[in-house]
Amino acid sequence: MASVAVIGAGAVGSYYGARLAQAGHEVHFLLRRDFDAVRTGGLTVESKDGDFHLEAPLVHRSSAEIGAVDWVLCALKATALEAARDLIAPCVGEGTRIVLLMNGLGLEEQFATWFGAERIFGGLAFTCINRDAAGVIHHIDYGAVTLAHLLDDPAALADGLALWAGARVSVEAASSLLRARWWKLLWNIPFNALAVTAGGITTDRIMGDPALRAAAETLMLEVVAAGNADLGAHGQPLLDGPREVAAMFAATEAMAAYRPSTMIDFVEGRPTEVDAMFGEPLRRARALGVATPYLALVTAQMGALDGARRP
Amino acid sequence: MASVAVIGAGAVGSYYGARLAQAGHEVHFLLRRDFDAVRTGGLTVESKDGDFHLEAPLVHRSSAEIGAVDWVLCALKATALEAARDLIAPCVGEGTRIVLLMNGLGLEEQFATWFGAERIFGGLAFTCINRDAAGVIHHIDYGAVTLAHLLDDPAALADGLALWAGARVSVEAASSLLRARWWKLLWNIPFNALAVTAGGITTDRIMGDPALRAAAETLMLEVVAAGNADLGAHGQPLLDGPREVAAMFAATEAMAAYRPSTMIDFVEGRPTEVDAMFGEPLRRARALGVATPYLALVTAQMGALDGARRP
Repeated sequence: MASVAVIGAGAVGSYYGARLAQAGHEVHFLLRRDFDAVRTGGLTVESKDGDFHLEAPLVHRSSAEIGAVDWVLCALKATALEAARDLIAPCVGEGTRIVLLMNGLGLEEQFATWFGAERIFGGLAFTCINRDAAGVIHHIDYGAVTLAHLLDDPAALADGLALWAGARVSVEAASSLLRARWWKLLWNIPFNALAVTAGGITTDRIMGDPALRAAAETLMLEVVAAGNADLGAHGQPLLDGPREVAAMFAATEAMAAYRPSTMIDFVEGRPTEVDAMFGEPLRRARALGVATPYLALVTAQMGALDGARRP
Repeated sequence: MASVAVIGAGAVGSYYGARLAQAGHEVHFLLRRDFDAVRTGGLTVESKDGDFHLEAPLVHRSSAEIGAVDWVLCALKATALEAARDLIAPCVGEGTRIVLLMNGLGLEEQFATWFGAERIFGGLAFTCINRDAAGVIHHIDYGAVTLAHLLDDPAALADGLALWAGARVSVEAASSLLRARWWKLLWNIPFNALAVTAGGITTDRIMGDPALRAAAETLMLEVVAAGNADLGAHGQPLLDGPREVAAMFAATEAMAAYRPSTMIDFVEGRPTEVDAMFGEPLRRARALGVATPYLALVTAQMGALDGARRP
């Protein structure tokens, strides 16, 4: 059994940490706002795969109190990137590895400059998880994680898969982190952007409005084009655009009315992950000379919407 | 001196009606919400061209009370189109002419089906006018009106100009209503769309954000392309795209921080003029086979934002 620190125990971090705890791992949760509620009432997961409850999860107010662990699950928002290094450092010992359960492009590379590339994994959760009351996680739909190593090292990846072997999470290994990140953006960019810019709406509203649905498809095709240019430049296998786009739309069609993470951040007045989710993909597309006009427009809108709430 | 009925005495209608009253015309204002305030306190115009006050403007609660006039100034929102016919009909006698001080494409054609094309004029106000308290109009910037006749009849147009001859309003005759309408959309489409979709921001914020400014320019160029296709199909003189775009940006640069009308409607929770300002231009572009991807995206966003407030 491994020791695990969950840094950024929001909905996603809490859910996957709870799944590892359920599997018998020693999981430490770094909590702020929910500390008292979770210490008193434990952690409840209402999951479409079966509810469960952690009676007495290991909760902490500081990472120093947790100390060095085998694995860090970092599920911070990309907007908290400035704080990430200090929050994680106390949990990093010689053999510690770090999985970024985060959205966006280029974050693993940033973490590598702090902690070394060999430690860094990307964990891409294609899932619908929201948090309601403190200590209560709703796992609404999907839930699989795609795991990849920053250096695409097969041995490291095997270690990563081993962590999840006994947990009730479907974990798939990806041989290319870069490809996996662009694949995730195929969904995140159109559905987060349109859910926000069309007024804070759920995915079913986008799917049900022919004009918004067409815009989502255009955005997705732009992400395919940019991603494949980036992948090609790095000698990585390309995305099969038509197949992936069809699969993303089929999955979204089958989804319950879902509030994408950025839409929730937006309607709740929190900073949104604009730079990692939109800014960095757009910068790469431009550097590679790929035309992404819709991505440029929604990035401008998202940036302005986000900036409007800053002091 | 002519008799005039102002139907839709919001900021724009009140301002131009007051200018005609100041010039000595017999101007009747149809009022609802502001009736008592204006009857008691008159109409105050705080204008960058000099303030003035109408002590006892002719105010009415119903158009029937006004009866037939020489000129109707219709400054209703395009969203009030269903009510327009009934509101205007009592003011229409044999020789009555109707000037639409409204935004959007295709409205004059609609009015023509009700009242006859020979009566219908388009009045395009390129101006910054807001209403603050009831009976107080702020004329912030610009103020010129471009006047055109639906049938582009020079004699009718001369009559229209004559109405304004003594008023402190700069009125320019346009020989093509269709061209004037597309010209107005060059500004209205980008600045209204981006002011709304970027979160309810003023024009200076768009001008000061390189990404939004670039998006505004792309939108404007799409409107030029669609407009010129429409104008060409109707044998009308085309817009000089580069020159008009440069002029629009220069004018907006010089403008005070301005809240475009649709942005005000949006932030105040009122219906927005989506169909006349975005939907109809997009339909025409599509019918003419002109690619207008940004217009399609912002129209989808504006439609969803507008629809989200309907029951």
